[in-house]
Amino acid sequence: MQQQMSVITLGIADLGRSKRFYAEGFGWTPVFENDEIAFYQMNGFVLGTWLQGGLEADMQRGGLARPGAFALAHNVASTEAVRTTIDRLKGAGGRVLREGDAPPHGGFRGYVADPDDHAWEIAWNPAWSIDARGLVTFGL
Amino acid sequence: MQQQMSVITLGIADLGRSKRFYAEGFGWTPVFENDEIAFYQMNGFVLGTWLQGGLEADMQRGGLARPGAFALAHNVASTEAVRTTIDRLKGAGGRVLREGDAPPHGGFRGYVADPDDHAWEIAWNPAWSIDARGLVTFGL
Repeated sequence: MQQQMSVITLGIADLGRSKRFYAEGFGWTPVFENDEIAFYQMNGFVLGTWLQGGLEADMQRGGLARPGAFALAHNVASTEAVRTTIDRLKGAGGRVLREGDAPPHGGFRGYVADPDDHAWEIAWNPAWSIDARGLVTFGL
Repeated sequence: MQQQMSVITLGIADLGRSKRFYAEGFGWTPVFENDEIAFYQMNGFVLGTWLQGGLEADMQRGGLARPGAFALAHNVASTEAVRTTIDRLKGAGGRVLREGDAPPHGGFRGYVADPDDHAWEIAWNPAWSIDARGLVTFGL
């Protein structure tokens, strides 16, 4: 089967608050939005931010918890860019979970929670390649 | 900033059990694995499955909950493939949350929880395109 994920959908409480984080913090533009969901075209898949009730109804499972046991990551080009990105996300409604520092496996990273408590790792990882379209490859 | 996500990392309790779901259920091959993490090269990003304690230590935040307020999606080519994929995932340790049916916005989808209770939507969505490399585009 194709090793493919088409969407990650985050359950959120407030569309405007969430959009501020993604649009002002990361600087991303929605490809579609209405009064309950916003979609962002990403590197080969789509990121959705959906009012949690809609997601729960679609999944037919209520009581989804935040923070959930997962992390998303966004890679940048330098340790300095890790710091400035974390600051920018903080200014757009994010909350710093871990300031940038060097993990044992190399590189540099910190963590920021979005306004709905979903964790984003902001990382500089010289061991992985990212092309001009944003496509990320494990290893070089 | 690049509209890019490099990794999604799922917190898991048992590597072997998780790997069975992803390797036997989806038929995916890890690009790297050790005794605490497995990485899968996906369509332009990397999927990680990491023992939850490791993820929590890295994030400097404990008590991450499952199921979290998010869903991942994998798209297939037909309504019949939605049904057979759900059955295959069920046979590899998944739990059906919603059998395949047609949502109001079109297409066909169901939901399966992986062995760590992370939700996967299995969808046929004729309104989005997926190329031979698995790269997914919102719209056609």
